[in-house]
Formats: sequence, C-alpha cells, structure tokens
Amino acid sequence: MNSIGTHFRLTTYGESHGLAVGGIIDGCPSRVALDFEAIAADLRRRADGAPREEEDEVEWLSGLKEGVTLGTPIAFSIGNRHARPEDYARLEHLYRPGHADYTYEARYGIRDHRGGGRASARETVARVVAGAIAKQVIAPVSIHAEVDTLGPEGDTRGGTVVCRIEGLKAGVGNPIFGKLGALLAHAMMTIPSAIGFEMGAGFAAAQMSGSEFVDRWNGDGSTRTNHCGGVQGGISNGMPVEFRVAFHPVVTLPSEVECLTDDGRLEPLTIGGRHDSCQVMRAPVIVEAMAALTLADLMV
Amino acid sequence: MNSIGTHFRLTTYGESHGLAVGGIIDGCPSRVALDFEAIAADLRRRADGAPREEEDEVEWLSGLKEGVTLGTPIAFSIGNRHARPEDYARLEHLYRPGHADYTYEARYGIRDHRGGGRASARETVARVVAGAIAKQVIAPVSIHAEVDTLGPEGDTRGGTVVCRIEGLKAGVGNPIFGKLGALLAHAMMTIPSAIGFEMGAGFAAAQMSGSEFVDRWNGDGSTRTNHCGGVQGGISNGMPVEFRVAFHPVVTLPSEVECLTDDGRLEPLTIGGRHDSCQVMRAPVIVEAMAALTLADLMV
Amino acid sequence: MNSIGTHFRLTTYGESHGLAVGGIIDGCPSRVALDFEAIAADLRRRADGAPREEEDEVEWLSGLKEGVTLGTPIAFSIGNRHARPEDYARLEHLYRPGHADYTYEARYGIRDHRGGGRASARETVARVVAGAIAKQVIAPVSIHAEVDTLGPEGDTRGGTVVCRIEGLKAGVGNPIFGKLGALLAHAMMTIPSAIGFEMGAGFAAAQMSGSEFVDRWNGDGSTRTNHCGGVQGGISNGMPVEFRVAFHPVVTLPSEVECLTDDGRLEPLTIGGRHDSCQVMRAPVIVEAMAALTLADLMV
Amino acid sequence: MNSIGTHFRLTTYGESHGLAVGGIIDGCPSRVALDFEAIAADLRRRADGAPREEEDEVEWLSGLKEGVTLGTPIAFSIGNRHARPEDYARLEHLYRPGHADYTYEARYGIRDHRGGGRASARETVARVVAGAIAKQVIAPVSIHAEVDTLGPEGDTRGGTVVCRIEGLKAGVGNPIFGKLGALLAHAMMTIPSAIGFEMGAGFAAAQMSGSEFVDRWNGDGSTRTNHCGGVQGGISNGMPVEFRVAFHPVVTLPSEVECLTDDGRLEPLTIGGRHDSCQVMRAPVIVEAMAALTLADLMV
Repeated sequence: MNSIGTHFRLTTYGESHGLAVGGIIDGCPSRVALDFEAIAADLRRRADGAPREEEDEVEWLSGLKEGVTLGTPIAFSIGNRHARPEDYARLEHLYRPGHADYTYEARYGIRDHRGGGRASARETVARVVAGAIAKQVIAPVSIHAEVDTLGPEGDTRGGTVVCRIEGLKAGVGNPIFGKLGALLAHAMMTIPSAIGFEMGAGFAAAQMSGSEFVDRWNGDGSTRTNHCGGVQGGISNGMPVEFRVAFHPVVTLPSEVECLTDDGRLEPLTIGGRHDSCQVMRAPVIVEAMAALTLADLMV
Repeated sequence: MNSIGTHFRLTTYGESHGLAVGGIIDGCPSRVALDFEAIAADLRRRADGAPREEEDEVEWLSGLKEGVTLGTPIAFSIGNRHARPEDYARLEHLYRPGHADYTYEARYGIRDHRGGGRASARETVARVVAGAIAKQVIAPVSIHAEVDTLGPEGDTRGGTVVCRIEGLKAGVGNPIFGKLGALLAHAMMTIPSAIGFEMGAGFAAAQMSGSEFVDRWNGDGSTRTNHCGGVQGGISNGMPVEFRVAFHPVVTLPSEVECLTDDGRLEPLTIGGRHDSCQVMRAPVIVEAMAALTLADLMV
Repeated sequence: MNSIGTHFRLTTYGESHGLAVGGIIDGCPSRVALDFEAIAADLRRRADGAPREEEDEVEWLSGLKEGVTLGTPIAFSIGNRHARPEDYARLEHLYRPGHADYTYEARYGIRDHRGGGRASARETVARVVAGAIAKQVIAPVSIHAEVDTLGPEGDTRGGTVVCRIEGLKAGVGNPIFGKLGALLAHAMMTIPSAIGFEMGAGFAAAQMSGSEFVDRWNGDGSTRTNHCGGVQGGISNGMPVEFRVAFHPVVTLPSEVECLTDDGRLEPLTIGGRHDSCQVMRAPVIVEAMAALTLADLMV
Repeated sequence: MNSIGTHFRLTTYGESHGLAVGGIIDGCPSRVALDFEAIAADLRRRADGAPREEEDEVEWLSGLKEGVTLGTPIAFSIGNRHARPEDYARLEHLYRPGHADYTYEARYGIRDHRGGGRASARETVARVVAGAIAKQVIAPVSIHAEVDTLGPEGDTRGGTVVCRIEGLKAGVGNPIFGKLGALLAHAMMTIPSAIGFEMGAGFAAAQMSGSEFVDRWNGDGSTRTNHCGGVQGGISNGMPVEFRVAFHPVVTLPSEVECLTDDGRLEPLTIGGRHDSCQVMRAPVIVEAMAALTLADLMV
C-alpha cells in the first residue's frame, strides 16, 4: 500500500502528471518548530542533476500552527508541472521494456500512462519532504548518504549509495520481524530503481571467516571494527549504522527500443525529450529520507 | 515486533531454552487439508547438518479439524530440549562479541542468557512450520532455494543462498511501500545472520549499462533476460522471481574470544560444546519459508 | 490515529480553520467510475440544517483518470472558509466546558484553538466524501440512516440515529476481535458527540428473556425477528444489519458558561456567532459514511 | 482477525473442544514481576457461577524469566476438558437459532461444531489471563466492573455491566479514529453476547438538554458531573472513565428449539447437559480485561 511506518507514518499520493503529489504524516510529535529551509534544501538536493528545472514548492494543508507541529496530521501537497502531456498519448497502448507499465496494467487493469504515473520517481518528492521532517524529529541522530560507486559510461547508468547514521544509542530496533536491518532493507528497496541492500560488510561478509568478521569489543562497549553495520539481533549496538543500496541503470534508454503493445505485438519506440541518463546523484537524499522515516518510526 | 504479514500473519514466540517455541498463524484460508509429511520434511531440512540431532515434533493446539484448516488461528508448539542449561550460567554477566547479548540488554534491561534466548536461531523452527503451510496455500506457485556460495574454510563460515519462485502470475505485489522486492528484502533480512539482499542482477546491475540491463520483451509478454528478478515497479511481471541473500559467518567462534562483562571489563571465554561452524546449509529452507509467508500474505 | 480501515483505508487531515480538510483513500479498487453527483448530494445532506451556508467543493488531487479510479491513493481536499478567525483569539487561553480544548492541551501541549481545530465536526466532511465513495464500492449493498429520536426542546439538543444495511450476504465480518458489531461500534463512536451504540435490540435485549430474544429460523435461513441486528458471532447472517447511535446535545451553549483558564482560574464566556443548537439532523449521512467505510474495508 | 492492540497486542487461539485455548501477548514491557495469584483470582472470577467446575491452569510457554517479563512474546496455553464430545455429534449438520453456527459456516465453509468451537465463550479465558497482566502493566490505574442490572427471571437472562476506571491522567487516547470511547466500544463489543455500549450518560444523554449535559468545571480541572464519562474529543480528561455494556440473554435455551439443517429443513432439538442460564455474573472480569488491554495498548 501507500503508507510506511506505524507510529510515525507517511502516506503518499499522486501521479507524476496529475494535479499534485504529496502526503500525510501521522504521528509526528507535537511542538516541533519546523526548519523549512532544511526541507527546501533537501528538495533542492533531490532536484540536482535533473535536466529539467524542478523547483518544488510545498503547500502545507494542516497540522501546523505558525510553523510548529500540533501533533495532528501534517498534510502537504506539491503541484506538478504538466510538460506537454500530449507527448504521452502514444504510450497509452504501449508497455515500455524495463518500466512498470505492464505490471501496473496486470495489477489494476488501468494505469495513468503519462510519464510513469504513480510509478514515476516524481513520487519521491513526498518522501523527501517527510524525511526532512523526520530528520528534525530524530535529531541529534544524524544521517549522511552519498554516492559510493557509479556505473560505467554507457547509455544510462546506475550505481551504489552508502549511508551512515551517527548518534544512535544502543537499544533501538526490535527482535525477529522488526529488526532494524530488515526495516531499513524494506525502506530502501521501496526506492525506485533500488535492486540491492546490504548492512555493514554485506555480501563481502559472506566470504569472510568468522574470526575476520566478528567485531571485537573495546572496553567501553564500542567495537574495533563494524562489519555488522551497527546492528546485532536486529537492535542497534551504539556503533554507526552503515548500509549500502544498489540502483540499477535508468531504464529509459536514449535509443530505439521495442515495446509490447496491449494487443500483443512488438513495436519500436524512440522516447524523445530530455531524460536523465543517471539518477544515482539524486538518490542519496532519498536514501536519507527513508532512513529518517524508519528511525522516526522507532523513536517517537 | 514478533508478527509478520497482514492477511496471512505469523506471530512467533519462544526462547531457545524455554519450554517451547512456536507460533500462531492467523488468516490461513479454511478447508486446506494440510500435508503434515511436507511440514516434517521441511523441518528435517532445517535440522540437516546440525551437529545436534533435533527431531522437532509439532503439537497442533488449534485451528484444525481432522487435519483440515478451519480458518481460525492455527497455534502450534515445538518443545525445546534443555541440554545442560548449567553450561550457560557463566554467560549471565557476559556479552559475547558478535551476538545480540549486549543489544537485548540495552533494549530490555533483561534477557534470557541461555543459548541466545529469543535471538537464537532456534526461533526459525516456527518459521519453517508456518512457511511449509504457506507453501501449501500458494500452490501451484513453487519456491526453491539453495546454497549459492560458501565462505572460505576458516574457523566458521557464511555464504549466499539463491531463491527462485516459479508460477507466479503477473500482477502480484504493490506499488510504493508495498513493493514485492521490499517485502522480500524485509522478510529475508529478518533471518538470523542475514546481512545482504539483492533482486535479480542486484549489485552487479549497478555496474551494467542501461542497454545491458533492460530486459527485452518477447512477443508473449515474457522477457529474454530477467535482470530485474521478475518484479517491476514492485509488482510481479510473470517471469520467475529471483533473489539472493548473503549470510555472515557463524559468530560463535571455536577459539577463545574476549567478552564484555556487564560491569565493563573484558574477559576471555572459550565456548565449549558442539556448535555449527556453518549454518548456510540450513538456510535455504528458512529462505523458502520467509518467501512463502510473503507470498501467502499477498495472495490470500 | 487518523486512519481507519486496513484494506480500504481512509486517513483524514485538517483543522477547522486551517487551509483545508481532506483525506487519502488507500485501497480503493480500480476501475470504479465515480458518481460525483452522489458525492455532492451526500455533502449537501451533511450541510443541511447548518446555520452557515457550506457548499463544500472537493478538489481531487490524485488516483483518478477521467473520473475512474486507478487503484492508487485518492487524495482530496476541501478548502475551509475562515469566518473571522479573530473571533477565536480570546479562546487561546480558555478551556470551554464540554469541549476537547483541555484534553487536546493535555495530550499535545499545544492546540489550534480556532473553532475546535482538529476536534471540530468540520473534519467529518472528509468522512462523508470517502463514505460516498465507499457506498459505490459496496453496491448493491445499501445503507440508510435517519433520525430516530430528538432530545427535548431546551437550549441545545441531542438524539439518536438508526441505521439499516440491506443486501449484505451472510458471511461478512470476522470472529473474536474483528466482529462486525465491534467494527461498527468503533466506527460510530468516532463520530463527534457519539456517546452510545447498540446492535439490534441493544440495551432492551438485556431486559428480555432468552426465548423472547432468540431469533427463530424460517426455513430459508432468514429469521422471523432480528433482535441480534443481523450479526451472530461477529459475522453477518444475511438479515438486515441494524444499529442505533446516541448523540449527546451540542456542547456549545447559547448562554454564558464558565471556562477554565490555562492558569487555573474560572472565567465566564458567552460564545457569540451563530451555532447549531442540534447536529443530529446532520448525523445520518455521517453514520452512513462510517458504515460504508466499515463494510468496504471488509469487502474489497 | 484474532489480534487486538498495536503496541500491547493480544492474539488468541483455540476452539472450546480442541486441545487448548490461549494466546500470545506481544509488546508487554520487560521487567514486570508478574503477580500470578492475581491472574488466578481473575480466572476464578470468570469461572464463578458456572455450573461446571472449571479450574483453569495456565501453562507459560515463553517470555518469562523466573516470573519476570523479558519483553519478548508471552505465550500461554490453557488445556480444555473434553466433556463427552459425542454429545455434539448431532450438531454437526444443525444450525442452532441465536448461535454462530450458520454464520461461521457461511464465512468459512467449515466449522468445529463441538460446543461452539471458536465462537464459544471458552475463548474469553485467554482474554482474562492477558487482561490480568495488562492490569499489572497499567497500575496504579485501576479498573472495576460489576453487574449493573440483570434481566427478568425467565428461561435465560442477560443484563448490563458498569465499569469505572480510576487514576487515569488527562491526555490518554487519540483524536478522530483512535478515540478512547471508540476503542473501548470496539473492545467491549467483541465480548460474546455484548449488544450495546455507552459512555457516561450514554443513551440517556440523547434525551438531556445541553445545559443539563455539559459537565461544569471545578477550579482544579475536575468537573462537577461526569456525563461525558471522562473522555472529551476521544482523550481522557482526568475524571473517572465510566461506561456500560449490555449483554443479551444466553441463547442456549432449556426448552426445545427449531434448528436449521444444512440441507435446508427445520428440525427440533432439545439441548441437554448443564448450561448457564445467565452469564452476566461472569462478565465483569471480562469487561475489566478488555478495558485493561485497551489502556495498556495506549500506555506502554
């Protein structure tokens, strides 16, 4: 569904070429004086590197009194800019390779074919707004994500993002099905194009011996290494929480591709207009947002 | 918490050295004639390779009428065998490196120190029982997991497991926060020792070019490659769903290790008794169980 | 919190004197061609009898394609009219008797004091919109509520509303904690001023003998009486579902009342402006909306 | 479904004539030294007045260490005594009037016909155990319920129970869909035979004038009357929380009744054995248990 979190819960809405995208945050603590400039700064980080200028302005519909949270739902809305919807007319009966056109049709029997509709990365703007608020809720815990690796110079590129959470005390997270690593994995794998997740040493840990892997104690409860990524048994141990997310390359290719038609034929298509050849540079702020939402849900 | 799933929900209970481990399945469809031999076979797969003989017998407490599901909660219990609990007395005030001793203490201020308590892999026996039932619920969808790679011959080893789901029609899963890949990532990362997850081409996809990565259509809606792992926009596309899980090495080392004491000192410990040096051989049936629980929750 | 329902879930937002009230419906089935006139008609029923003209216009933000549901979240917004907010300045430090001023302050340490803020009956406009959609989803099941009794002619009045659901087949609802009567009770008791709920014969049933109360079978599975209100063991039995809701009188009195100040004094206040002396005439459409939301959640 | 609560969650299981009934409590705070005698005393109150001796012994399966809660799931089991199951053979194809036989069959297509199966009041034993623990968690808040009225001396009787919660501070509960009165209504209407619920003055409030109904302030934040039942806008105001629950008469009549057969005929049946003619005397401890579970969920 379209909600994440139990106590600090974000519900998002909106299609890329509908009237607006946005969300409702339910469970935000009261009496937080929001730093709107920090929210705007995160929105600019998300827009960075985009070929289209996107200056997203947030309309705050509820939940605030003179910029201070009331404890009631914070609803917000960001208007979409409808750049030539007629460009999309020919996509109504085509399923592009690598996109969610075909699967949405299978799931719902209908879809908004304009620019990816609900499946568009446009939806992440609501996550970044909510994530920027979540960061303020969990302060002084801090979250920093950055591009780790970029894919090769080809037509379009993917890459990996590394994220580090500092200041989280030991004891956050839950055993069994509510493990911190599982919640982060869930949150990260909901980001468009995310295709892999690892905590700490991750896949490399599978090729270590036990004595290489196990993090030895210092006398103060910290550890000399952090191969486990700051989480044991699903619960934070007081070390920085570290993880990586892999993103596959952008699936809108600059060259001609074969689409499947809704009557079962293959048809060539060259997608015009300007499109990103790499979205990994925009991903760290989204990774941070999803990490902040995950932690806020555990900490409020 | 200790539940997973919304419609087909498993709640587990039990410490490794308490009276029993088990669970309640709520939301299982009625009128399923359970194949108890299939459940026993999965329990034997879980016990395989274990240095201790574990023949787990399931006591069925509710929800069945002559072996057929009633639609009411299926509660089950598996007794524990208390092999010399006195062995654990010295662990009461020690936090072993790499284990959840310290984090449980930070989270709850108390823990069952005997054999890992709630954090023990013993808990997965309840998952395997419930997963075996879930497999029967989602049939004819089939799930097969196996060891993919094993870590090097050292003191203890980890490895990776690959899983393939066949027979799943297009249209299963949800957009945004309920993506199939995210639900699977969550489910897999709740398995003890899991430290990484990837769908389809996974981390390797981050180093592909777009034209290499994008799965081309065949005329029948299938694709020539399956780099995305059978999921697009969070929804199955009718191709096999494929993913990998990385497990770190066993953290109970055969050699002496330094433990942290609960009064802040370091103290050497050599853990006696027989312990697995590798649990990856037991992991495929648990991976299958968690995949089956994830799918049953989407399909009932 | 501010959500109701698991499968067909409504989340509402908005303070009475903020920018807007509205909601997100998550889980609405796809391909429902909405009848917008029916939604407007229900909104007019809610406004009927109100001393202030309220013509509520719904702005649809997402989830629709040419008036047809996409299966994605339906977000909507209804603008508020800010009739002289300065009227409310003196309420900032006063807790009116019978209102939620004091309890919101106790819960959140802050509140929007203008016109009841989040606690205002203004919020029910979002429920009526969502309920009108839910009615279309559950058709041909039909819901009809009407005023049953009105309180005496005094300063302000309460009353009771009776509701009857027809066309619901046997087998809807859940045992134990998900009983249909319990879900309806929950839904109804969330309506502002609701103070009592009864199924079928209700409180009168407590004074019947068993042979008077028990509904005898007809040969076709229907019953000769319907004292149980169409539900047995939490599950519908195919008879009409019938229940009553009691509403206490409007708590904004026309005469002078003593308020508690936030520094612990009593201070007289005469609330000016036009206020309803009875809201029970507006309640049936809200009762229907909450019943429709409850059923849609069980039937989608 | 079979769970109630979000933070302090009870899941129950068991049919009346199966092996056992019981439950799992998830979310119980750690380090509560349970008072087992208080639990046994509540179980005896539940058994009081029953024609059959029922000494329920609780088997604790998990979540405790020397009687102290670990913060992990507390699973418990109470064995059933199978008094002559052959008595029930003739009920396999009959739907008794007033019972849930017909509706369970409509819902699931199968049922345990022995003694009410899952729909039996036997299930409430698990609620009483969990409720007795919840009372200890919310202390020093205290809950007292007692029989308010009894139905007339006829074949079988119903009645009403009144409940009063003391020591609850102002600020507990949630606005809108999480109102304390709505949560209590939900909880109470899940009790077998419950058919009505009212807060404070309840249905009588619908016939009061506003100036009669509104609770006037004392200078200390308490009120001179408590017609609202201690809750305003869904949130406690610091006054005692008061409510009533109506129970319909026992539906197992001592005289011959006509049952519906599963092939659509009417067939007379006289139910033998000893059966309660009134269960209202056993209801107060169940009402208290459900109130305690509701509050624990809001307070942990």
